[in-house]
Amino acid sequence: MSKDDDAGTPGSNRDTHYAKLRRAHRDAKRDSQGLPPVQPKNKRDLPARKGALYADRVAADTIYLYGLHTVRAALDNPARRIVGLKATRNALMRLEIAEDADLPYPLELVSPQEIDRLLGDDAVHQGVLLEAAPLSPRPLSALGDTRLLVILDQVTDPHNVGAIMRSAVAFGAGALLTTQRHSPQESGVLAKAASGALELIDHIEVRNLAAAIEEIKAQGFTTVGLDSEGPEPIEAGLSGDRIALVLGAEGKGLRQKTRETVDILTRLDMPGAIKSLNVSNATAIALYATRRHLDSN
Amino acid sequence: MSKDDDAGTPGSNRDTHYAKLRRAHRDAKRDSQGLPPVQPKNKRDLPARKGALYADRVAADTIYLYGLHTVRAALDNPARRIVGLKATRNALMRLEIAEDADLPYPLELVSPQEIDRLLGDDAVHQGVLLEAAPLSPRPLSALGDTRLLVILDQVTDPHNVGAIMRSAVAFGAGALLTTQRHSPQESGVLAKAASGALELIDHIEVRNLAAAIEEIKAQGFTTVGLDSEGPEPIEAGLSGDRIALVLGAEGKGLRQKTRETVDILTRLDMPGAIKSLNVSNATAIALYATRRHLDSN
Repeated sequence: MSKDDDAGTPGSNRDTHYAKLRRAHRDAKRDSQGLPPVQPKNKRDLPARKGALYADRVAADTIYLYGLHTVRAALDNPARRIVGLKATRNALMRLEIAEDADLPYPLELVSPQEIDRLLGDDAVHQGVLLEAAPLSPRPLSALGDTRLLVILDQVTDPHNVGAIMRSAVAFGAGALLTTQRHSPQESGVLAKAASGALELIDHIEVRNLAAAIEEIKAQGFTTVGLDSEGPEPIEAGLSGDRIALVLGAEGKGLRQKTRETVDILTRLDMPGAIKSLNVSNATAIALYATRRHLDSN
Repeated sequence: MSKDDDAGTPGSNRDTHYAKLRRAHRDAKRDSQGLPPVQPKNKRDLPARKGALYADRVAADTIYLYGLHTVRAALDNPARRIVGLKATRNALMRLEIAEDADLPYPLELVSPQEIDRLLGDDAVHQGVLLEAAPLSPRPLSALGDTRLLVILDQVTDPHNVGAIMRSAVAFGAGALLTTQRHSPQESGVLAKAASGALELIDHIEVRNLAAAIEEIKAQGFTTVGLDSEGPEPIEAGLSGDRIALVLGAEGKGLRQKTRETVDILTRLDMPGAIKSLNVSNATAIALYATRRHLDSN
């Protein structure tokens, strides 16, 4: 590929940073439950600035959101409880917040380096860091009047789930439904991948996915599972005017019980030598196809 | 999201690991050019086992590929120069290689921990590590007889480029074309995201993207740029029986010169509150739509 030395791409920068934030969040959560922090396997796993990222700075059930899109969306979300905002002068201007604004939360003008110190040098924070409470997932009874729903069966990677939230909002899905177990916690990582979408979509969490799918079917949704071995192409499975797309983790796919519960199992036709896609890419295509079906209905 | 402590998701595991490999690869390359290694900004940036990942183990222009899919695909690629294979007994079985096989490269039976020591504890290597030379990108003159092409205008994130390769192969694209500068180097990270696709698609690298697009147009391709402000929906832009999709980096989008050179600028219609997708998701949708156009042609 390029002959350039570009180990400093955004992707590369985010990585160590994300892992660190996840550890901090995990340990903060364990701390709140009276559990000891997970012991890193070796020194390398220790965050560089223990004081900065451990519980004395990030309280239990508080997360750091960063990046202009992500923070703007969080500030615009009335359901988001804000603990405090740290921003550079420039970022504050780009957020269209006056330095002397009368805000219901503390605002601190900081240097980019001060945010680096909290998130690690590598974070693509664009000069803004929001300390906030995570949003509470909602029960299935909160499902509103929507024609399009995305259901994830134990997809665990926060980058994928974040990207799926983004596509779900883009294509007008009314909610994202996940299982309580084997789904990622809300985090700065997930929020950054969602690029604001976290604030714009209802996140519904259920204990029993098969029971939830039955309930969704009873509400008039056609539940369409995606499976590389599905007997029908997805276009053939899209019927009715309410669609719930059901996707599983890469490799594992949908669990047996999920496969048995959905109305129809469908596949994405791929003529090439590779027959499976990254799960966020598969979801994006399914959303696009479904949107076209619903709009022509 | 889930109340579980799942900081140990695959995504989380891969992250620090990737950053480390990128640094190692970067430094190995710099070493081969007589340049000193890039100085880490602070201690945290140092790989845990300098000896393992620096030039004394990974020679210049040698990369580590790992994961069953990725390694299987590399072994099956006659153009891939293999330096050596390290695998656990179990992984070797899953690769369907006999322990006493007569191979044209050294095979070493190792424990998972020995691979951990080379890649870091966090790598999702599935017990297999292949040391290999990177593939050489090809010039535009090597473009074969294909009806579908993906062109990336300075997309730098190796996860995204890897996922795009995977979708490109799945939808039968004949080549991926990138610019020499501002594109990621081939690496274990990119290869893992590509999930074998790296070995299955021609990677063409050009210096001057606009000139390359002109040449591609002359070969009968309709060059379709994706742009959130595109005047036409993508479906309207798909014409003819050879299509080259042109996508830019998130945020920046296509460069002005690229926008001026493509036959048509198109958008993906998104009815929701978010109007842009992750670039690999956008590419996946564009590939799906284009495949449908070509197949009905």
